[in-house]
Amino acid sequence: MGAISLAHGAGGKESWELIKRLIVNKVPEELQRTLGGYGLDVLDDGAAIKLGSKYLVITTDSFTVYPIEFPGGNIGTLAIHGSINDLVVMGADPLALMDSIIVEEGFDLPKLDSIIKDMVNTLKAEGIYLIGGDFKVMPKGSVDKLVIPVTGLGLSEKPIVDTQLRPGDRIIVTSPLAEHGATILAAQLGMLEENKGLKSDTRPLTKTVLPAIKRFRPYIHAARDPTRGGLAATLNEWASMKDLTIVISRSSIPLRDEVRDFLDAMGVDPLSTASEGAAVLGVDPEVVDDVVNYLRTLGEAYAVEIGYVIEAPDPYLRGKVIAETEVGGKVLVEPKSINLPRIC
Amino acid sequence: MGAISLAHGAGGKESWELIKRLIVNKVPEELQRTLGGYGLDVLDDGAAIKLGSKYLVITTDSFTVYPIEFPGGNIGTLAIHGSINDLVVMGADPLALMDSIIVEEGFDLPKLDSIIKDMVNTLKAEGIYLIGGDFKVMPKGSVDKLVIPVTGLGLSEKPIVDTQLRPGDRIIVTSPLAEHGATILAAQLGMLEENKGLKSDTRPLTKTVLPAIKRFRPYIHAARDPTRGGLAATLNEWASMKDLTIVISRSSIPLRDEVRDFLDAMGVDPLSTASEGAAVLGVDPEVVDDVVNYLRTLGEAYAVEIGYVIEAPDPYLRGKVIAETEVGGKVLVEPKSINLPRIC
Repeated sequence: MGAISLAHGAGGKESWELIKRLIVNKVPEELQRTLGGYGLDVLDDGAAIKLGSKYLVITTDSFTVYPIEFPGGNIGTLAIHGSINDLVVMGADPLALMDSIIVEEGFDLPKLDSIIKDMVNTLKAEGIYLIGGDFKVMPKGSVDKLVIPVTGLGLSEKPIVDTQLRPGDRIIVTSPLAEHGATILAAQLGMLEENKGLKSDTRPLTKTVLPAIKRFRPYIHAARDPTRGGLAATLNEWASMKDLTIVISRSSIPLRDEVRDFLDAMGVDPLSTASEGAAVLGVDPEVVDDVVNYLRTLGEAYAVEIGYVIEAPDPYLRGKVIAETEVGGKVLVEPKSINLPRIC
Repeated sequence: MGAISLAHGAGGKESWELIKRLIVNKVPEELQRTLGGYGLDVLDDGAAIKLGSKYLVITTDSFTVYPIEFPGGNIGTLAIHGSINDLVVMGADPLALMDSIIVEEGFDLPKLDSIIKDMVNTLKAEGIYLIGGDFKVMPKGSVDKLVIPVTGLGLSEKPIVDTQLRPGDRIIVTSPLAEHGATILAAQLGMLEENKGLKSDTRPLTKTVLPAIKRFRPYIHAARDPTRGGLAATLNEWASMKDLTIVISRSSIPLRDEVRDFLDAMGVDPLSTASEGAAVLGVDPEVVDDVVNYLRTLGEAYAVEIGYVIEAPDPYLRGKVIAETEVGGKVLVEPKSINLPRIC
């Protein structure tokens, strides 16, 4: 069986295979979901249980990003935004969070104080409750700086479970991709100085993406925030769920020049690079233009349709993602493990 | 403000003061609880929100214990038991868990597999759902081995909020204390070989303590599992909430000889040492004997009344815990920071 590698945590194919083998396959099917909800059986952004007339949506994520401060945010704001956005793409109104702080002995108290201030200010601005948490100190050398696990709670009439994606659906991306991953990569390589145009896109999607999801809810069949593993991982998971084929146009994917240039120079595929302020939607073809236009009205100026879902006649293409290139060719889009640890 | 110290994470007075200063005081009161539930405002073992006719109780804990395997269990079983017991002492039936695995690059895969197998077997035995989670890999040197944050979900008609503790209440301890803390201390000091009688008491309290709590629910005013900081921390928090005084008889506290001898030799106070399979209850005097007897019927052979709650006439004693010694004296029981990190 070997040992844990960085690829196991990169959010790509290796991650999913390991999680299935190590965890999901051990849990009897009847213990994977409860109370008419969704759980391990769907491996979505969060789980759900039905209580009264609504679903409670629960997400849990451990934020390990390094460096803990970066252009555009810090580990604290990222932890809050990331948890909020996992709820948003489940179609839930964020209600409350619980956070854990795991901090290294010797960590600067004023810095921790300032990070927590940023977290609480984000919650205040969003009107989200902080109802509990945990606080652990680890001796020097046993944890690097700061890790923040967060549990998010939200309410939904009908959570979005991505297995609803179907042939004919169109794929929408809500904003330029790969901003966060490119910024963290540059920071880890000490290349921020030469790449001043890079900035994480970490932000909550409650004011732009959530209203669009809620307005067109019956037509939204899948939604995800393409963090670890990027767009490529999201689309490949979607394609593999029901052996569908997703066809995208590479040139239609929104990317800022600074991000494209930096990633090109590094030889890193932007499609496998994380975003923290974007969503990918799979929507009914009937409403695709309306959804894109509404997202733009709400402020997502770069929202755009990038592809569609088919049932491929060719068995080889089933469960795969294909990109049409500008010169008319077709290439497989595979989730590349860029082995960039501590990205979120 | 200085830097984070191990005492800040020990679960004693320093922990509580820091958590209040760093986190609780920053969150506006109106954002500390929601949906008629309990949250940061009560700082109990978990939070609660009311959904339909029931309360959903939510707990979150990050398990960092080291060594990750110890006599009596491992980090995985501890994480499951600890989360279950936090729900039990809130008066909730455990329903489902979500776990995060934060693992170091290079960690032995068969070992991780075996730890997760133990976790899932515990869940199966308890009929508890595993509905989701997260999986992160950190590069070598940025996390020591394995950290497991867990979120627990349970249902309760009426959660136990410890602020209900009142003068006249009796204090019950359900089983011998300090077993887990003594074992981890011996393991960290390399002294397990000479202390073969030490074994963590990590176990779920669903079959013994939970039925007693449910049967006598209206008379149970406070309940907690004395983990970090031990009995001393639990009782001091209870006393300080409403400026009550808790009087205990030191000699009545159940301790196994092996644990007492080892901690004596180390100069460590068993009252400040963690348990992982015990509960402390504050109950109405009318039912104290019935509760103790019922706990014994259920298998908690060492359940015993150890003290009582008063409204002290002497202002100096308010908010304090006092132990009556065998020779008739009275001493303050203070939560000592034994600075033992990674205990749970």
